[in-house]
Amino acid sequence: MIGARGRMGAEVVRAVGAAPDLEVVAAVDAGDRLSDLADAGARVVVDFTSPDVVMDNVRFCVDNDIHAVVGTSGFDAGRLAEVAGWLEPKPGLGVLVAPNFAIGAVLSMRFAELAARYYESAEVIELHHPRKLDAPSGTAAHTARLISRAREAAGLGPMPDATAQEEPGARGALVGDVRVHSLRLSGLIAHQEVVFGTEGETLTLRHDSLDRTSFMPGVLLAVRSIAGHPGLSVGLDAYLDL
Amino acid sequence: MIGARGRMGAEVVRAVGAAPDLEVVAAVDAGDRLSDLADAGARVVVDFTSPDVVMDNVRFCVDNDIHAVVGTSGFDAGRLAEVAGWLEPKPGLGVLVAPNFAIGAVLSMRFAELAARYYESAEVIELHHPRKLDAPSGTAAHTARLISRAREAAGLGPMPDATAQEEPGARGALVGDVRVHSLRLSGLIAHQEVVFGTEGETLTLRHDSLDRTSFMPGVLLAVRSIAGHPGLSVGLDAYLDL
Amino acid sequence: MIGARGRMGAEVVRAVGAAPDLEVVAAVDAGDRLSDLADAGARVVVDFTSPDVVMDNVRFCVDNDIHAVVGTSGFDAGRLAEVAGWLEPKPGLGVLVAPNFAIGAVLSMRFAELAARYYESAEVIELHHPRKLDAPSGTAAHTARLISRAREAAGLGPMPDATAQEEPGARGALVGDVRVHSLRLSGLIAHQEVVFGTEGETLTLRHDSLDRTSFMPGVLLAVRSIAGHPGLSVGLDAYLDL
Amino acid sequence: MIGARGRMGAEVVRAVGAAPDLEVVAAVDAGDRLSDLADAGARVVVDFTSPDVVMDNVRFCVDNDIHAVVGTSGFDAGRLAEVAGWLEPKPGLGVLVAPNFAIGAVLSMRFAELAARYYESAEVIELHHPRKLDAPSGTAAHTARLISRAREAAGLGPMPDATAQEEPGARGALVGDVRVHSLRLSGLIAHQEVVFGTEGETLTLRHDSLDRTSFMPGVLLAVRSIAGHPGLSVGLDAYLDL
Repeated sequence: MIGARGRMGAEVVRAVGAAPDLEVVAAVDAGDRLSDLADAGARVVVDFTSPDVVMDNVRFCVDNDIHAVVGTSGFDAGRLAEVAGWLEPKPGLGVLVAPNFAIGAVLSMRFAELAARYYESAEVIELHHPRKLDAPSGTAAHTARLISRAREAAGLGPMPDATAQEEPGARGALVGDVRVHSLRLSGLIAHQEVVFGTEGETLTLRHDSLDRTSFMPGVLLAVRSIAGHPGLSVGLDAYLDL
Repeated sequence: MIGARGRMGAEVVRAVGAAPDLEVVAAVDAGDRLSDLADAGARVVVDFTSPDVVMDNVRFCVDNDIHAVVGTSGFDAGRLAEVAGWLEPKPGLGVLVAPNFAIGAVLSMRFAELAARYYESAEVIELHHPRKLDAPSGTAAHTARLISRAREAAGLGPMPDATAQEEPGARGALVGDVRVHSLRLSGLIAHQEVVFGTEGETLTLRHDSLDRTSFMPGVLLAVRSIAGHPGLSVGLDAYLDL
Repeated sequence: MIGARGRMGAEVVRAVGAAPDLEVVAAVDAGDRLSDLADAGARVVVDFTSPDVVMDNVRFCVDNDIHAVVGTSGFDAGRLAEVAGWLEPKPGLGVLVAPNFAIGAVLSMRFAELAARYYESAEVIELHHPRKLDAPSGTAAHTARLISRAREAAGLGPMPDATAQEEPGARGALVGDVRVHSLRLSGLIAHQEVVFGTEGETLTLRHDSLDRTSFMPGVLLAVRSIAGHPGLSVGLDAYLDL
Repeated sequence: MIGARGRMGAEVVRAVGAAPDLEVVAAVDAGDRLSDLADAGARVVVDFTSPDVVMDNVRFCVDNDIHAVVGTSGFDAGRLAEVAGWLEPKPGLGVLVAPNFAIGAVLSMRFAELAARYYESAEVIELHHPRKLDAPSGTAAHTARLISRAREAAGLGPMPDATAQEEPGARGALVGDVRVHSLRLSGLIAHQEVVFGTEGETLTLRHDSLDRTSFMPGVLLAVRSIAGHPGLSVGLDAYLDL
């Protein structure tokens, strides 16, 4: 584990430690030496650190033939291409860069993408605690873009909407051609609903994250599966059998 | 029944006809004579007509000592005062003017008003078919205003909301100090959710109208109860025991 | 169309007639001659009839090189094998036998099957009008069996459940190893929720059928796609790109 | 605070300490002396202890003219009568015995009771973590009994239900004449839905407890209000203005 003293890192150390088939051989953070990981014989490294150090960490893993599961943000196309380049001479080695390890969020997005072409209408509602700074959430905006693209690929026209009088903001924000609505309420954690509608029926995909630990099953799945997915993978859905 | 050939009127005639304890003695519409109602011995008249004729209809009922259940829109303070004036010399006679006869909508609004003072946060989501012209719906806007007033009366301050970056419209429309979000999807009919939140818990009041007949139980309740509620009443909640 | 005067058949005739790219060339029912379909040049037949006549209808279609979309029930393994046999010498011809044409129901079942292996817990709630005779619904029972099989295939053990004191029936009916709960309420039509849970998160797939017309988009999709799916297909999901 | 080192007690001490208008003057637990509370000048005591010591604690409070907010379980009619007896000579003193301090749970139950008479059908779904021992939950069973009584008082007959073939348990447990369905899934905390239905519409009251702290707003409300509610009160709803 790199970033072992961070909030996410501490949870990962605890969850890996509790899994009967896995073991934490080394847990480092800022100030520790990465070589401890190699010395301890780590086969997979999990990185929840920060954008300014993550590239060095991944490079270290690749150089030492250690698979890397990376939850740190800040990966643009340039960084991804660089990592892919490092992996070229190492055909058996895997790196997973994933913005979201909550399996339900990943499944919701994938299912939304699959369902989009079969429905005339689609909108997204996301509900979060009131300390959140951005609206809509990154996951909701990403989901809306996936739906937009799937609708376009299927040749669907604009959604029906006769609204003629609108109180500003009532119909939400337009992301692609999908309306997104953001609620902020005390007591909530992180929740999302994608609602699809066609003649006489609706389909709703709802994901509720009730705890930071919702990321753990996805991290454990990645640690267990990475050896079977060599090369660079982006997004946990690459590891799900969908 | 006045307005018997309209969509709502036809449903009322059918529903009253099907009720074992009620009878339709006369059903008139534009072109028919109101005196038919008095001649037939009507004890209660239900009016679903239009703003330009409804005042004459109510006046006729009051003059003939017939209770009136009115679902027609267009009643402002002036019209209500006028009706109240007509009723003054008739202490046993009742007129109910109600914008919404769906019992669930009326209960939702009342419960929302009662709950509002106990929660830090409250938002409204309304979901309708895509042929609807206005956003938010009248019921949602009214609900938001009731919540705003209840919060103010309880001395609650502004809701917590750290949003610093907002895609325009994401946080919905502000009605009073309550955010309202309007969804328009094929397949939907008329639905509303009021979500309240405080530390560690949320309360959600959801009303689904799946059919125009959702107005009928409320109309029947009014017809049966009006003799016990003399004078002018505004809103079906006056007849509910809440 | 065969079964054109039945409730479903009449809806299909109306929906196909309203679709700009499709045409109803013949609509027959009990007492009419099937040869009218061939004479009118039908390329696809939709059959919503009854178990006792459907095999003759399908045989007629195959003999006359007409694709058949069949919503009639009563197909067991023997009947399916028989239809497959008829199709063998006709490599370009398609027959679709589907128990449910609501796209949302089909997607829900497929998504439930895909999600099942990633969650410790799964239960099904189905909610219907109170005139329904069986509990749980066929769709809910089928969904529960799909989840059970997917869990078994993924090597998942029993779901966690510490219940020690149970009021009889509180935990629902066991179908496979999945609990199914059936609600029957006035005002409802046909609704289903599949709820999955794992550490810190839940995923809910909800399908609402608000109208008999919810079957139409699926029937139209089948009519449009059948030429591209020769042979015998069972279930509309065979035509969805999942 | 009595029971200050228990899970609930520790939360209360934290929450009262964080409230600008309240102060924790003494926090005792098993082994400490109750007289510390009186010596510190406590005006209100909160008791989350156990059935075997709670009666002595309440007696101490009454003797020392301290209001008591009691969340400890185990109060039957005999114990309540005994407490009421102690309070007789102290007209200004209040004792609140409440089984549930989550405001949303209390509001849900009260709203369910109010709505019950207006709907043909009502059922309860409760969803909890899989470590729960009893099914249905105490709150769900209590809610079902309140609905049953309200239906009986309103003269409602049996709910419509045509079920003729039932997989054992599918229709839930019967509490009074209300069906209750219990789900147990990993990731859940404590959730309840009451669904009402009549012609063409449904009303759903949903309460989600996402955290043990959901009890705190109710405890604080009680501490602040008890001086205005002398005598014995049972249930937090006595302090809500409904």
